[in-house]
Amino acid sequence: MAHVGVILSGCGVFDGSEIHEATSALIALDARGASYTCLAPDTQFQVIDHTTQKPTGEKRSVLTEAARIARGEIKSLADANGADFDALVLPGGFGAAKNLCSFATEGAACSVDPQVERVLREAHGAGKPIGFICIAPAVGARVFGSDVHPKLTIGHDAGTAAGLEALGAQHVAMAAAGIVSDDEHRIVSTPAYMEASGPAEVFEGISKLVERVLELTGSPVSA
Amino acid sequence: MAHVGVILSGCGVFDGSEIHEATSALIALDARGASYTCLAPDTQFQVIDHTTQKPTGEKRSVLTEAARIARGEIKSLADANGADFDALVLPGGFGAAKNLCSFATEGAACSVDPQVERVLREAHGAGKPIGFICIAPAVGARVFGSDVHPKLTIGHDAGTAAGLEALGAQHVAMAAAGIVSDDEHRIVSTPAYMEASGPAEVFEGISKLVERVLELTGSPVSA
Repeated sequence: MAHVGVILSGCGVFDGSEIHEATSALIALDARGASYTCLAPDTQFQVIDHTTQKPTGEKRSVLTEAARIARGEIKSLADANGADFDALVLPGGFGAAKNLCSFATEGAACSVDPQVERVLREAHGAGKPIGFICIAPAVGARVFGSDVHPKLTIGHDAGTAAGLEALGAQHVAMAAAGIVSDDEHRIVSTPAYMEASGPAEVFEGISKLVERVLELTGSPVSA
Repeated sequence: MAHVGVILSGCGVFDGSEIHEATSALIALDARGASYTCLAPDTQFQVIDHTTQKPTGEKRSVLTEAARIARGEIKSLADANGADFDALVLPGGFGAAKNLCSFATEGAACSVDPQVERVLREAHGAGKPIGFICIAPAVGARVFGSDVHPKLTIGHDAGTAAGLEALGAQHVAMAAAGIVSDDEHRIVSTPAYMEASGPAEVFEGISKLVERVLELTGSPVSA
């Protein structure tokens, strides 16, 4: 069975991993007999009050807060090698665009957290498939865009799609529950809350993404 | 279609709502065409570092942290009337036993947050079904145990089951993906992470609980 690394960016849509997306990925992996290790960078982020969507001025640890989604079972990206996993999956949420890379504030001029970039390159270099959810394709576009010009989707938002294309990716518009599978580069993406009207659609699209990622690993899938 | 109140207790298994359980409830409701409002008490809790399971000494707001699961759309229980919903659902996590009631520290001598108790009594008094997940049946046992002796499950743990029975509930042992439906009192429960080995089993049991709760509302269900 496949063992998948799930790269989290905190816990909560406005400053971390989108919780429904991350949880949907874990349910979909577990339902198909895949095991997983949650991973996160050991860095700090600016807290957003989710009732007001305003910064509180407080900082928290990406790793410690992401551990909430992982029920405490989490590993620092610094201690991980991307090639050790059969695949990687990156849920969305603003954390993917603020804590894994700086796309939210710098757009096409963004940089990627060095540990995130290293682990992604290790996995990709070893031929392992990677699934990018919601806004996380921005990370994939920044890391792989200029090399392999992967096909990626972030849904339909023209401005965000232009940002991905400026990074070298080929944007493919897609509905909430659809996926784009770049089989040549083993990169799969789904829009999730970039398009979805609620958690059921998010779960549907992410289930398809996980299924495709697991198919691309060549490992047995239980359901 | 049914409109369901989901009572959260924070965000994270060790000091708030168990994230996979809360998300599973939202997905299952949305997938069946039900809408929901997330609710939480406007109180403070002691933060547990989820990487070490130790208290940090910090306090956070139950409502503000629960808003992370609710993507910012949350209402204080103080502003809610339980009778206004077609049903209520309470996910588990230590928050249910520490922030909604004091079962985690006081067992059968526990008390329930006054706003939680009021909203539960309003819903129950108006004949609305209530779903209790994981350890949340402790809240139901404390509020309704001495009056109606509801059938409830927390899985198989003998000590916890004895605590529920001391509060007047009738404990029924149940496997992870099973539910106990006390049709007479419109109270449904499922063990979730009291028994489950992973998020897929949690999702399976909670999906059954949500389906039964929606059946008991008498509202149309879309799937």
